Amino acid sequence: MINLFDFPGGPVLARQARPLARRLQALKQRFHRAGSPIIYVNDNFMHWQADFKELVAVCAHPDAPGAEIAERLRPQPGDYYILKPKHSAFLCTPLPLLLAKLGVRRLVLTGIAADACILATAMDAHAREYAVEIPREGVASRTPRLRDLALATLQGAAGIGISRLSRIRP
Amino acid sequence: MINLFDFPGGPVLARQARPLARRLQALKQRFHRAGSPIIYVNDNFMHWQADFKELVAVCAHPDAPGAEIAERLRPQPGDYYILKPKHSAFLCTPLPLLLAKLGVRRLVLTGIAADACILATAMDAHAREYAVEIPREGVASRTPRLRDLALATLQGAAGIGISRLSRIRP
Amino acid sequence: MINLFDFPGGPVLARQARPLARRLQALKQRFHRAGSPIIYVNDNFMHWQADFKELVAVCAHPDAPGAEIAERLRPQPGDYYILKPKHSAFLCTPLPLLLAKLGVRRLVLTGIAADACILATAMDAHAREYAVEIPREGVASRTPRLRDLALATLQGAAGIGISRLSRIRP
Amino acid sequence: MINLFDFPGGPVLARQARPLARRLQALKQRFHRAGSPIIYVNDNFMHWQADFKELVAVCAHPDAPGAEIAERLRPQPGDYYILKPKHSAFLCTPLPLLLAKLGVRRLVLTGIAADACILATAMDAHAREYAVEIPREGVASRTPRLRDLALATLQGAAGIGISRLSRIRP
Repeated sequence: MINLFDFPGGPVLARQARPLARRLQALKQRFHRAGSPIIYVNDNFMHWQADFKELVAVCAHPDAPGAEIAERLRPQPGDYYILKPKHSAFLCTPLPLLLAKLGVRRLVLTGIAADACILATAMDAHAREYAVEIPREGVASRTPRLRDLALATLQGAAGIGISRLSRIRP
Repeated sequence: MINLFDFPGGPVLARQARPLARRLQALKQRFHRAGSPIIYVNDNFMHWQADFKELVAVCAHPDAPGAEIAERLRPQPGDYYILKPKHSAFLCTPLPLLLAKLGVRRLVLTGIAADACILATAMDAHAREYAVEIPREGVASRTPRLRDLALATLQGAAGIGISRLSRIRP
Repeated sequence: MINLFDFPGGPVLARQARPLARRLQALKQRFHRAGSPIIYVNDNFMHWQADFKELVAVCAHPDAPGAEIAERLRPQPGDYYILKPKHSAFLCTPLPLLLAKLGVRRLVLTGIAADACILATAMDAHAREYAVEIPREGVASRTPRLRDLALATLQGAAGIGISRLSRIRP
Repeated sequence: MINLFDFPGGPVLARQARPLARRLQALKQRFHRAGSPIIYVNDNFMHWQADFKELVAVCAHPDAPGAEIAERLRPQPGDYYILKPKHSAFLCTPLPLLLAKLGVRRLVLTGIAADACILATAMDAHAREYAVEIPREGVASRTPRLRDLALATLQGAAGIGISRLSRIRP
């Protein structure tokens, strides 16, 4: 979600991501209150020459298209964060080791884009035998149709649970 | 494609896979004639206690539901083969090293199931920056709808080329 | 241990490996009797165009320098086997998934060469938090000095337990 | 090299690392002048709840045992950096993708500890077919003996080039 939205289709995706950020802010508070770990997994669009908090600062700049989103979802003390080089949060990242350390076997995936990073991450999580849940209003794509196509594929292919935000328990 | 079809939905998938095997046999001959490498990537349903050719023998047994398929697509001298533990042909297999050794950067994916192993393999190939082509009549799922859903997702998500069998050049 | 010994230094290594095979045959029987799983992890020197049992057959050919070794250590029903593309048994192989399936967290590493495949495998096993034991007379290199150098490095670097064959419990 | 040295043996290692930092500072300048990329690969001892530059700040605190080292080797604009979860710089990190992006196939490994992170990283780099060079005075362990044991193992096992700092060309 912490993003410059400077790629083809970026502005269209940002339009979907803004209301999503509000919903995720509320979900994040529920997780915080329950003491459940929150892990940011972010593209390193500054090519391994910047830190995550520097990426947040760049994206939260008032003129940036993702400023409101970065503000709302700014990491808080106790949050974990990982930078990823590719779509999947599992490819060439410490995520599997962090999850093992935290004793986590159930993942709730949220964010953007449902038909790219979420899709790849969910497939990889399923292959590694994590329980995966995706709340439909917790993810977004450039269009609701692309989102629903990806979620239908995940549900059909991997039996991944697609649920409602209100049903997610931290 | 070399499969016992003994899982839930297996017989339904076998029905789609039989005509597919005929089409892939013809495609395989075109690749052979062109001298292009053919790599089998098969589930090791015998749990690392059997070899690939033993798997073929078991699946080709006259009473087995995949007998005709295993006969048609029986590996020939010069073919490569790899056993995989999970959906994706890239996860915990030597495939990336074999492809590097062969100097291959373009993959034509065929077989079953489009919405499971093909989907996972295509996503992983895309993340590793291979050029990926999937001929629509070269893959199958339990239903054409499930196949088309997976192919639409791959096309939308990763820009993977979905083409026709007749357009595939070895 | 199933090997053609046709690389530079191969004949020298074979001379160390022959008496080693006798010791490992006895160790293997102890594991069999205890019902502990045995996993062969072998180089695929036939470049993914042959099965493990075909590799065994080639190596056991009477004229082959490793014939006696391959005969002694021929896989038996119930043994697991995996083909690996590189030194480490963990690199691009299904080994981590097989170990998880078997519920194995403690590895006894044996075979050749102590300063190459055993070294790389032990380092990778340690990084993945397996308990690793290596019996000194259960591994070999071209010379005892090279073996002892590798074992000293593993002991110092990773705290890996170097023990005696007679102390190994299946 | 950016380290709290707060583990068993840490103070002993810090004593070796301080003069090493001076030598690496000079080497780094030579690489900078030549326009060759410099990649920091650091343990994330703050468990994925801090950025690399925060780690540097913590280690450079005047009271910290590694303060002088962190000051000397503080990352500069244009440097790359990666956080790693385990000994090897290749395990669960974006390093392979960054190296591919940079077109780098030759690695000069420096830092600490020669018999742990350097050993594991060199083995992994060798398995992935990078050319690897290690300058003997460019790495350190708790004792020169442990360092030399690890370097001898790498030279014997993987044919890795052990050279002198003055012979390293950026």
